[in-house]
Amino acid sequence: MKHVISIEDFSRKDLDSLLAEADKMLSFVKKGKQLDIMKGKIMGALFFEASTRTRLSFESAMHRLSGSVIGFAEPASTSLAKSETIADTVKTISQYCDVIAMRSPFPGAAKLASEVSRVPIINGGDGSREHPTQTMLDMFTIKKEKGRLDDLHIALVGDLKYGRTVHSLCKAFQNYKKIRFTFISPKELAIPNEYKIGEYRETNKLELEDADVVYMTRIQKERFPDQTEYEKLKNIYRITPETMKTMKKDAIIMHPLPRVGEIDWHCDSDPRAVYFKQAFYGVPTRMAIIKMVAGGGN
Amino acid sequence: MKHVISIEDFSRKDLDSLLAEADKMLSFVKKGKQLDIMKGKIMGALFFEASTRTRLSFESAMHRLSGSVIGFAEPASTSLAKSETIADTVKTISQYCDVIAMRSPFPGAAKLASEVSRVPIINGGDGSREHPTQTMLDMFTIKKEKGRLDDLHIALVGDLKYGRTVHSLCKAFQNYKKIRFTFISPKELAIPNEYKIGEYRETNKLELEDADVVYMTRIQKERFPDQTEYEKLKNIYRITPETMKTMKKDAIIMHPLPRVGEIDWHCDSDPRAVYFKQAFYGVPTRMAIIKMVAGGGN
Amino acid sequence: MKHVISIEDFSRKDLDSLLAEADKMLSFVKKGKQLDIMKGKIMGALFFEASTRTRLSFESAMHRLSGSVIGFAEPASTSLAKSETIADTVKTISQYCDVIAMRSPFPGAAKLASEVSRVPIINGGDGSREHPTQTMLDMFTIKKEKGRLDDLHIALVGDLKYGRTVHSLCKAFQNYKKIRFTFISPKELAIPNEYKIGEYRETNKLELEDADVVYMTRIQKERFPDQTEYEKLKNIYRITPETMKTMKKDAIIMHPLPRVGEIDWHCDSDPRAVYFKQAFYGVPTRMAIIKMVAGGGN
Repeated sequence: MKHVISIEDFSRKDLDSLLAEADKMLSFVKKGKQLDIMKGKIMGALFFEASTRTRLSFESAMHRLSGSVIGFAEPASTSLAKSETIADTVKTISQYCDVIAMRSPFPGAAKLASEVSRVPIINGGDGSREHPTQTMLDMFTIKKEKGRLDDLHIALVGDLKYGRTVHSLCKAFQNYKKIRFTFISPKELAIPNEYKIGEYRETNKLELEDADVVYMTRIQKERFPDQTEYEKLKNIYRITPETMKTMKKDAIIMHPLPRVGEIDWHCDSDPRAVYFKQAFYGVPTRMAIIKMVAGGGN
Repeated sequence: MKHVISIEDFSRKDLDSLLAEADKMLSFVKKGKQLDIMKGKIMGALFFEASTRTRLSFESAMHRLSGSVIGFAEPASTSLAKSETIADTVKTISQYCDVIAMRSPFPGAAKLASEVSRVPIINGGDGSREHPTQTMLDMFTIKKEKGRLDDLHIALVGDLKYGRTVHSLCKAFQNYKKIRFTFISPKELAIPNEYKIGEYRETNKLELEDADVVYMTRIQKERFPDQTEYEKLKNIYRITPETMKTMKKDAIIMHPLPRVGEIDWHCDSDPRAVYFKQAFYGVPTRMAIIKMVAGGGN
Repeated sequence: MKHVISIEDFSRKDLDSLLAEADKMLSFVKKGKQLDIMKGKIMGALFFEASTRTRLSFESAMHRLSGSVIGFAEPASTSLAKSETIADTVKTISQYCDVIAMRSPFPGAAKLASEVSRVPIINGGDGSREHPTQTMLDMFTIKKEKGRLDDLHIALVGDLKYGRTVHSLCKAFQNYKKIRFTFISPKELAIPNEYKIGEYRETNKLELEDADVVYMTRIQKERFPDQTEYEKLKNIYRITPETMKTMKKDAIIMHPLPRVGEIDWHCDSDPRAVYFKQAFYGVPTRMAIIKMVAGGGN
């Protein structure tokens, strides 16, 4: 039984093959054609922590494959309120379905779930630890918009300390060649040492002149132990049309969304602003992921 | 791209054609026959304000057309909790689906959504402003139960100040001939001047003798800035079997539901009480609406 | 129109025939084959009280029969917040669907619903009164795991006062032969007299040596008027691997779940621990129930 727990479980070959499958899915989605791969199958969407966009993206992917969805959107309505453990909840609901996509605020929850579940587990985020499907869709976006996953200069901006999407992206790109990172953050939100891999530069200035990919992040209020710290840092970087003038003509700006104030709305119409397209690419990427773990033998 | 934002965007010809389509849908629903019009397609049901019956009616319509549904039932579980704007939420979720039905407490939200969405928007109510699909199903009910949309005496009862269903109904009937309105309300909840169109009479007495259609409304607690005002007015009108004796033999009583105390339960078995049938008619009406904006070329 | 309100409405013949149908459904589920019995049909899942596992089990059953689901998971998002009665909510939503599965904290709610609904009602639990589909799946589990429903010694353990699953099981087994019950509970949670039917023994000791079926229950915090009483009793019985050594080699341990501490996790790998399998059996059982009340003429 295959699970998707951590981006580190995927080799370059695994990722390349997954993204090729996502590309096939994309062409079906664009044609408005439904696939039958998950017909008669059920996904459990277990969101022990609310995350509307991740949940709806997974549900959309399942429906586009002709599957059905059961689940919950937040913990309040679950048996957790009756003191049940996550392991028991997952083990029980795995009796009702064929694949589970789950999110939890607890690091390691997805791994634990995979040890008790009757069906494959897809990690939709476990606290500050992992969010592998976000990384896969980020890579798919770069592949589609830049045409390559090697030979890139990637600027990561904002909360590089708590931002798990940034961490997973750093790890995933270890598998690729000629990658340069620029880590742009205030020192309080600096990238942890374990992610400083390969060629990189650190700065607290929003210098984007030479970047092929600018990956913006939201300063996540909910990850801050100290709210005064959050207030001080929340507006530190902001991309405006002025900023965009300094960027390469063929650069792209990505963002896992939601944004708060990091990217001015006036940027949205610039073709280099691909963050909503990135959300769109999430569906075919997750279709490929669901097929990989639960799509049967073909 | 077509949207359904305001009843005022629809001419008589538009409405007549939509209701004819709803009538076809009704015959399929009655036969228990599923249509394939939305097969492989996904509706986003975005309820930024809870509204169980409107949401479930839309979802039922989508399923009866073989489509799937993703979404949320109330704002607590959305990214709004992370300070995202409605525009960004809609723009993002429109990447995951083929049509959006939305409700919001903010007047103008549906219009704004239609400006950023990748897919058609159907307004399921935006605050005190508009609720066009309710008006369409109200008209469909009148058409089915009275056999005509011209030459009618319509009594509107209760909260005519805040009741958006009443406002939209007044506007829609501007397109029809020989319509007479009787506006029955306490002066505190009188109909605003802009809706006093054509032939009308105002009174604070529950005089229903001459009406073809009696449209009851709930005094909506949540629209009152002042709760003592609400307490004073909430039970002002009440239809009982006694009241019904004064009504025409072929009149109908409608209500957008939920009711609180405006209509005594003992009236439910009277064939003139069509408010639950009205709920039933909502499904084929919304099937026709979904087909109109997102059903492809046929 | 058939409804499922109380286990007492079902004769032995009814139950045997239902369980035979559930067995057919089980073989389809195991083969991963979807049935078309509810294609084009919609279930309303109305949970006026949250119950994740019951809700998801019903939804899974409906999807495995090719049906769709609309509904709500808890009362907060319903019109009840606008003071609507349960009768009106059910009557309205029954206009949108073909069958309703509902749970309510109010004893008698399902019966009331069946009197106003346009479509069949399946009671998914009404307060401390009834939970007939749980009893049916419990019986299906015993049938599958023990091979028979006659000639059994059943030990019921824990909260026998408030536990409705225990009450319904006692009533259902009146229809079967050579059944012996052992009621194991502290005196504060003793089985009410009305359920002391046929051959039985009462004790407050966890004596399981001679039982064919051990049915554990959670001490339900939410049913206790007095929380200090709850604290005193909550950990009174606990099955551990040591306890299991005293049990028959071919006994089975059941639990309606969620468990809190009544069964040590180390028991889960023992083949006699069938409580997760019991959850699995719930889906084919509910498929058979849905087919029975809403599956058309065949």
